[in-house]
This record gives sequence, C-alpha cells and structure tokens, in this order.
Amino acid sequence: MNSAELVELGQQLRVDSVRAAAAAGSGHPTSSMSAADLMAVLLARHLRYDFERPDHPGNDRFVLSKGHASPLLYAAYKAAGAIEDGELATFRKLGSRLEGHPTPRRLPWVETATGSLGQGLPVGVGIALAGKRLERTGYRVWVLCGDSELAEGSVWEAAEHAAYEHLDNLTAIVDVNRLGQRGPTRHGHDLDAYARRFQAFGWHTIETDGHDVDAIDRAFGEATSTTGQPTVILARTLKGKGVASVEDREGLHGKPLPDAEEAIAELGGPRDLVVRVQEPPAARLLHAVPDGSRELPTYDKGDKVATRNAFGAALAALGTARGDVVALDGEVGDSTRTEQFAKEHPDRFFECYIAEQQLVASAVGMAVRGHVPYAATFAAFLTRAHDFARMASISGAGINLVGSHAGVAIGQDGPSQMGLEDLAMFRALYGSTVLYPCDANQTAQLVAAMADLDGIRYLRTSRGETPVIYGPEERFPVGGSKVLRSSGEDRLTVVAAGVTVPEALAAADALQEEGIRIRVVDLYSVKPVDRETLRLAAEETGCLLTVEDHHEEGGLGDAVLDAFTDGRPVPRLVRLAVRTMPGSAAPDEQLNAAGIDATAIAAAGRLLVGEAVVR
Amino acid sequence: MNSAELVELGQQLRVDSVRAAAAAGSGHPTSSMSAADLMAVLLARHLRYDFERPDHPGNDRFVLSKGHASPLLYAAYKAAGAIEDGELATFRKLGSRLEGHPTPRRLPWVETATGSLGQGLPVGVGIALAGKRLERTGYRVWVLCGDSELAEGSVWEAAEHAAYEHLDNLTAIVDVNRLGQRGPTRHGHDLDAYARRFQAFGWHTIETDGHDVDAIDRAFGEATSTTGQPTVILARTLKGKGVASVEDREGLHGKPLPDAEEAIAELGGPRDLVVRVQEPPAARLLHAVPDGSRELPTYDKGDKVATRNAFGAALAALGTARGDVVALDGEVGDSTRTEQFAKEHPDRFFECYIAEQQLVASAVGMAVRGHVPYAATFAAFLTRAHDFARMASISGAGINLVGSHAGVAIGQDGPSQMGLEDLAMFRALYGSTVLYPCDANQTAQLVAAMADLDGIRYLRTSRGETPVIYGPEERFPVGGSKVLRSSGEDRLTVVAAGVTVPEALAAADALQEEGIRIRVVDLYSVKPVDRETLRLAAEETGCLLTVEDHHEEGGLGDAVLDAFTDGRPVPRLVRLAVRTMPGSAAPDEQLNAAGIDATAIAAAGRLLVGEAVVR
Repeated sequence: MNSAELVELGQQLRVDSVRAAAAAGSGHPTSSMSAADLMAVLLARHLRYDFERPDHPGNDRFVLSKGHASPLLYAAYKAAGAIEDGELATFRKLGSRLEGHPTPRRLPWVETATGSLGQGLPVGVGIALAGKRLERTGYRVWVLCGDSELAEGSVWEAAEHAAYEHLDNLTAIVDVNRLGQRGPTRHGHDLDAYARRFQAFGWHTIETDGHDVDAIDRAFGEATSTTGQPTVILARTLKGKGVASVEDREGLHGKPLPDAEEAIAELGGPRDLVVRVQEPPAARLLHAVPDGSRELPTYDKGDKVATRNAFGAALAALGTARGDVVALDGEVGDSTRTEQFAKEHPDRFFECYIAEQQLVASAVGMAVRGHVPYAATFAAFLTRAHDFARMASISGAGINLVGSHAGVAIGQDGPSQMGLEDLAMFRALYGSTVLYPCDANQTAQLVAAMADLDGIRYLRTSRGETPVIYGPEERFPVGGSKVLRSSGEDRLTVVAAGVTVPEALAAADALQEEGIRIRVVDLYSVKPVDRETLRLAAEETGCLLTVEDHHEEGGLGDAVLDAFTDGRPVPRLVRLAVRTMPGSAAPDEQLNAAGIDATAIAAAGRLLVGEAVVR
Repeated sequence: MNSAELVELGQQLRVDSVRAAAAAGSGHPTSSMSAADLMAVLLARHLRYDFERPDHPGNDRFVLSKGHASPLLYAAYKAAGAIEDGELATFRKLGSRLEGHPTPRRLPWVETATGSLGQGLPVGVGIALAGKRLERTGYRVWVLCGDSELAEGSVWEAAEHAAYEHLDNLTAIVDVNRLGQRGPTRHGHDLDAYARRFQAFGWHTIETDGHDVDAIDRAFGEATSTTGQPTVILARTLKGKGVASVEDREGLHGKPLPDAEEAIAELGGPRDLVVRVQEPPAARLLHAVPDGSRELPTYDKGDKVATRNAFGAALAALGTARGDVVALDGEVGDSTRTEQFAKEHPDRFFECYIAEQQLVASAVGMAVRGHVPYAATFAAFLTRAHDFARMASISGAGINLVGSHAGVAIGQDGPSQMGLEDLAMFRALYGSTVLYPCDANQTAQLVAAMADLDGIRYLRTSRGETPVIYGPEERFPVGGSKVLRSSGEDRLTVVAAGVTVPEALAAADALQEEGIRIRVVDLYSVKPVDRETLRLAAEETGCLLTVEDHHEEGGLGDAVLDAFTDGRPVPRLVRLAVRTMPGSAAPDEQLNAAGIDATAIAAAGRLLVGEAVVR
C-alpha cells in the first residue's frame, strides 16, 4: 500500500470503529480513532501474520494493551479479511465474539485478554522472552499501549525486564492522545516526558506524529532494525481524530459518537479496503528442548521434608521429562526452591526479580506460546499479582502458580510474609485449581499433575518440614482426597490440608486413646473438592471439623461447603482457622496460638463429640 | 554528635543488629549492617522526632521500606532511648513487640507495616501528601529502601506520584548494597542506573558513599534544602559491612552471623551510646478543615438510582460534615462518582491516575496521619492493590475502599471490567468489613457508617440503576440485615445483596402468585454477617438460597456459612452465583445468563420447595 492508501485505510478503521460503537450503543470509538493510523501502517506494512493460521510459529504477535480500543482491533480484523463486515454490528452484543474488550477465548488472533490497563506490555514482554530465549523463530511482538496506562507500575516492571533481557523483538507503540477517562493525563502531549523515562530504563525511543503515515512507517522500520534493546514508539495523536465534534475533546471517553452518520460522512464514508498482510517467515515448531525420561523424586515414609523442597525437586525432574516446562521466580528461588530447576535447566529458567506482576505476566506470555510455566514466589506476595491472575483466568491461560511460605507455620518472620489469603484469592478465580499438599510424595505427584490441567493452577507449599506419610506409589487425582483415619465408630471428621494434616493425625491418635474415634481427611485438592468423600463422611460421622492455616474466609472451611450446596442436608460444620493477627514466634507456637494445632483439634473434637457448641 | 561519634553510633547499630539476630536465631543482620551508617546520621543529625510523643503533629515520619532490616530499626530505638537494651533479646520471639518485620500494632513509632517490598515508599508518598496538602506542619518523610525492591512497579508509581505532586518533604534513601536475597541485583553498584530512572521521573538525586558519615550528612542536608521535588539519596553500601566474613558476600541473606561473638568483637564490641534526637518544631493540630453539618442525600422510594451515584453524593456530603474525610480515585472518578467530592472539596481530593497500588498506599498514608480516606476505583481493579490492602490490614490502618462496577451487571464491557472476586478478596483480610448495598438510601447510610469502623472497610457499588426500596429514615447497622419479605408460611429464604435484591423480590412476588411464600433477606453486611437473622430464617424456613453477582467462591454464599460454623445444625444451603465466564451483553441478559436473575431464583425456589435436589 502506498501512503495515500494507508491514509484511506486509517479512515476506514475509524469509520468501522464508529460504526461498531454506534451499533452497540457503547464502546470506545474515540480511543480507537487516535490509534487508527498507527494500526493501518502496522497492518499493511510491518505485521507478519497469517490470519488463517494463528498458530503459525513464525507469526508476529500483536497485543492491544489498551483493550478498550477493541473497535479498532475488530476493524483491523475486517480489513485483514479475517472477519466479515457484518460481524462488526454484533459488537458488545450477547453471544458475539466481538466483546467490549478482546479475549482469546473468543477470537483466535487475540493473544491475551486485555482491559485491565498496564497488562498488555508485561504479557508482551513474556511473549517476547519466549520468542527470544525459547523459540528463536524470529517473530516480533507489537504492543499498542495507551498513554494513561503508563501510570501503572506494572508497565515499569515490564520496561525494566525487557531492557535487561535485551528484547529487541519487542516494540511498544504508545498512542499518546493526552486524554484519559476523566480528563488530561499527567504529561499530556509531552512525548519527551515519556521518552526520558523509557530511555532511563534502557529502551530505544522514537517520537513521531501518530497521524503521519510516512513518519509512522519510518518509526516502525527503525524499531525493527534496532538491535540489543526494545523500542518504544511515542506517537502524538488526537483522541477522536478526524471528527471535529469529538477530536481532542474531554468528556467523550467510552461513548459512541453523538452523530455517527455525520461522523462517518466527515471521515469520507464507509470503505472496504482489504489489506494483504505480510506472510510470516517459515519457522520450525516450538519446544526445541526434547523430552527426557520422567523420574519424579521419591521420599521414604517417616522422613521429614518440606513440601517446598519436594516442589523444587519435582519441578526440576519435570523439566527433564518435558521440554515445554519453564520456571520463573520473583528473586526468592532459594526459598521457593525453583533454584534446583534453575541449576539443571538454566535456559528455561527466568529470573524476574522482585516484580510479581511481571512474574505472572511472563508466565502468561509463555503459556500463550504453548509453554508450560511454573511461576513461584511467597504465597503472600502472589497477592501482588492478583489482577494479573484474574486477567489470565479470563484469557484461559494455562499457568502454574506456586506460593511458598503459606500460613502462620512460617514462624518468626511474622504476618507480612505469611500467605493467609491465598486460598481465597485462587479459589475465587474462574476455572482455577487449588492444591495444597501435606507431604513430599504428594507434592511431587501434584506438581506433575498440574502441568496438564486447564486454566490457573495454584500449588501452596510450606516452609517447614512435615513428615512423609504417603508412599511414592500413592496417586493423588485432582479433585480427590485421602482418608487417613477411618473406622465404623467415627463420631467426627476432621478435614485438614497441608501443615494441619499431621496435626489432625496427632489429634486423632490422642482422642483414640480416650476412646474417641475420628475420621481424618486430607483435602489436598481444595478446588475442586472431593464431594463424594466429604458427603460420605458427613453421613457417617455427622459433623465436619475443618482445620486450616489460612484466614477463616474463603479457604478450606468454605471449600468444604462446595460439597453440600445442592440442597441436600448439610452436616454440622465447625472451622478452625487463623482468626487473630499473628506476630513473630516459632512455628509450633504459631500453630498453637492460632488454635490450629493437634491440641486445639483434639479439644474441639472432644467438645463436638460431646455435642457441645463451640466457638 | 561529631563524625567520630557518628561512626561509633553506626557500629553500635551493627552490633545491636547482630546481637538481636543471634538471640533470635534468625533475622536479617547483614541487610541491617549495610544501612547502619545511614541510620546513624539520620537519627543523630536530621530526624526531628519526639519518641515520647509519637503523635506529635510536628514529628518527622520514618518508614523502613526494607522491613526485613528490622534489627537496625530496633537498634535505633535503643539508641534513641525508646526501648531498653534488654528488649533486643526478645526479637522475633513469641509475644515480643520486636517482630521480624515492624508493625504499628505493636510499636507506636512504626508508621506502617512493612515486609512486602516496594510498599514503604508508596505509603511514604501518602504520608508526605498528607503533610504537604492537608496538615502543613512542615514534617519531613524519610523512607529507607532496599535496592532490590526498586524492581517493584509500585516504587515507580510512587516515584511518578511524588514528583508530580512536588513532594519536597519526602526523601527516599536507597541502601544500594547490590545483593538481593538469592544473589546480585540487576544493577549491582551502578548508582547511575538508579539515578537516571529517578531523574527521568522528576526527582532530585544524590549519589553518595553510604559508609562515609560526613558524605551522608551532606546528602541529607542537600535533600532537606531541595525544593519543588522529592529527593532520592542513592547510597553505595556493602551488605554485612564491618564484618569481613560476611561483608559483600552472597548466600548470607536473612541469616544470623555465623559467629556473632567474633563479629561483635570485630565491630569493636557493644556500646551504649544514647542519641539526643532533635525535637520536632511546635505544630498545630490536624484537620484544619472544620466540620460542617451533616446532610446525607436522601432518595424517594420507587426512584431508580445507581448505588455508585448515591455513594458519590453521600461522600461529598460526608466531606462537608467531617473535615477529616478525604477522597482518592484511580482516574475513574466519573465512573466511581468521587467526582462530586472532587468538585465540592478539591483540597481534599487526590487524583492518583491509573495506579491502584499508589491509590491504596496513599489512602494508608492518609490514615496513618489520622485522616479518613475513601479510595475508589472499579472493584475489578482493586485486585491490583490486593497486597497493599493485605499489608494495610496488618498495619491496622483504617481505610475505606470503594469498588464500583461490581459483577456481571455492568453489562457490555465484559469480564475484564467486572468485579467478580472482590468479595472473596476483602472478606479474607483480617479484621475487614464488607458492605454491599442494594439501594441509594442504604448506600448513603453505609458510606457514613463505615467512616468510624476499625480496619479495612470495603463498599461494593453497582453501575446500573436499582430501585430505591428503603426510606431515608431506615438505619442499617453494620453486621445487620433486612428481612424484606416474611410470613409464617415461608418455605425458603433467599439471601441476596446488591443487584440481586430486586431480583429476589421479583422472584418472591412471582412465587407468591403460585402460592409459595418465601422469605427474602437483604444481607448488605457481608462481613460481619447477621447470624441471628440467618439462624432464625434457617430454623423457620429450613433452607437458604443465596444469590450473588460474584463467583461462587468466597462471596455471599460462603459468608452465610459464617452463621452456622459453631457446631449447630446447618440448614440446607443452595447457591446461585456466577459460574460461567461472561462475555459482553446487556445487564439483564448478563444476570439471566449467569442464572442469578428473578427467573433463576424463582426456578430454584420451586425446585427447593418441592424438595428436589438442584444444581
């Protein structure tokens, strides 16, 4: 396409954005119009992409970080011949693939769900990392950002990470239209302000007029020929560009144009240009690392091993068995134990430093490219990336997140380091799996099993040693549980997981000496829960006592309820959980103070069996 | 103190850090030793603080962002005469005030809990903002950061915010000891790398030798005399400084020194220097804005009003009534409706742009200084600040967080904008309150009531209009509920909140026409829940059906269980919640597709009353 045609294409993208939002009665046409010329030049001149083969390993990858500009994206799909013009009219309607913010669940050309600002660039960094270090097929990653979202700290985690890793296959394009949702941004059209920041973080920067197609073309060319560092193109644009009644005006964010027909006429009317997008270069398949034999670590019953250690060993073994497994850590690999994977598989280990948002975003980017990422940090610090995990669940990204140092059982470090909300956070994510092993063999099995699940998979590990209670031959299906103590005379069922399992067993032993038999269930699969076992236990023992090293809301206690919310009779339920604010103390003192140790379980058991009401 | 004495004081702080960690058998002495000279000069020469009056309005404020260096902080307290030498030996022990990471719950001189890295500077920005814009008592804010934590995006949200607000009362001191937990940082001792970044963000930067007390003294002096912008002092230091066996060595993070006695001898032995810390200047009290009369907005029954609108109007009215109320927003004030407060009380409104971590951190900083902050953004985007809310709960900070656009009811924008995990997130925080109003008068009352609660208070508001069902005279105690339909013949209780309340009422009406009477409870207080009403409903109707615009985990359904976990018989419980991934659609279509509208409630009611098992 020549320059005049590019101008026309830009106008077409504007017209189609206006049309889509008008048909929907909502949406963000003005935020689309500012970036239309950038998108036109990218699509027609620089992107290499086969829309019929979105899985082509040589395809460039495009991420619309400013996800609210979805009309522009869909208009581009039409221009590329990927969707019909008529589909634009379904925008934001029930059942349409063209959602308010793009999601890969619906559209094969969308890499990652966006709409929570400041996430597209971090995920783009993850994709570019995969391209650079794992695949080497030469694809480029293009991320279209808004200017408002540069206020998000996650953007600067991404900027730091990308420059440090020399991601010259990554180009960020910033649509500097100077207007946020409710008014001007901090820096308006001061492109230099943004350039200084990106330069300081090690990026190559280009400032351009975002409505001059030739200047944009030169900028993209310069970006693709820059080596050794990522490039950001800072494009001065006008929100609502091309329609005088809305151009560069406040108060029009997220609203259809007041008079769409008039606007379309002003833009020169509808067009039906079709762009022949460049083919990607031929490229070989992913996962150059061959699979090896799988030999998960095994442990002897009675040994004492921290589940975090078993995780580290199992992950390293899984890395040997599977070439698609990669590991990431937030600069605590000596604590989470990903260090073993890093040592054995350095090419597939990604140090993300203390930047948990980028840690999870990198994992999402790897998953987008077909790898199987395990990203680990302290359970407490995964809360830092909650929004990234939330968006990953919307994407349907298959990522493994591993939170170590769960609960008060960590001991002396105190509450800031204790994961006490993580089960609630991960249970509440759509389609998630939540696993909480209590011993080393169980951990090893679950680490391997989680690799092949869908969606967000969370593994909770513990800092301190726990006894190995299962043999290496034992299997632990996701959605299952283990009944560790059971008799025909059980008068109560204790449901435990992780560090509270040995406490429950000790309590059962103590009560048995008093003539009280109780059932003990190891609910290692917190989501989904083993409904059958819990229901049977309820029927046979009448009362369930849950014991967890987590706040009482949203964790194990609430999870057990999942087995009884179909209208059937519910057993008596009692919860032991962390209800006070812990301080520093030894692990056993912590469990005691929180009332979740063997003593507390036995005491509750006596009361419940005696039919007394406790709390 | 002269230079030689400052050197001695630095050594004393090192010795006491080593002693505390040795007594504890854990802790971070090497991370304390690198910053000891910085702390010595600050304490003896620049900090203005009355340890006997931590509430003194003229006190400078010190935040230890690298919270793991707590031994240094406690050693400084000893040097200032605030604690006895003997207390150092209680470090990290059960019941001690000297926790692994400092918390204000235990120590009056700690402004905010730290230990999750990258949070001290953002909270310091909040305190400095309060000092600059609300109090004007002239105090300075000093934040001691680690170098590793500069990888956190939240630090750059803070850097951006501080420079934009010209916070020349803020000094960040970075202890660049080049070593993180598991090895070298990205930039090692390259102070320029950090200086470039801070300069680009608009800060005055000073590079210094962090072990030269005279150079440090000059740096602090330059920082306090810099106007118009915040200052960062980048101090080149050595981890473990002063003890050859650990100095500048890897693999020693978070560990007591191998031979404490030898190390203490090498450091010149124990000392008992006492520093006379400068007195703060005389200062007047906080909250210069006088209280006015309180006239909360009222609405007529039958009108249709969005609860977010009622929130905005009530907050503005509360701002008139109370001079201590401040509001903050994440650049969506036209959506959350804080814009009304911003218009009426511009001096007490803080625009935080799209940076939710800094939004919450600013609120924490305001709360630290005795103000009553309301921070608002979309409920979905508050997940971005989960770790900040978690740490605020550890601090015991009294902050009000308001999440708008809850649930699928927002309609066309799609899942990225829908708060579907927020109830789980906020319920799981220690000591939190979770409120979810369904109508405008209820919202107004709750907005006022939450101001005086302890801890984290969360209010969930809705985008669309809902009918006003309560009169303005109605009262809504926190921990209460409202029974909206009740009869002697109720065969089921529907528990709803927010947008599902009108749906539940419509279902009750439909069922009544079929001869089925059901009870309807408006559970506006999700945490704490109204145990009495729920238990009575269970007794009288036998079955509870919860209906919520939230994922099924951790929200209303789980909250109801709180009323029945004391061992008493549990009623039959059934949950209607969002179980599928929503797309774009109109609000009523969304409620229908999720199975939480009147039709779904009525259908479930019929089945349950007919004793059938549903799901």
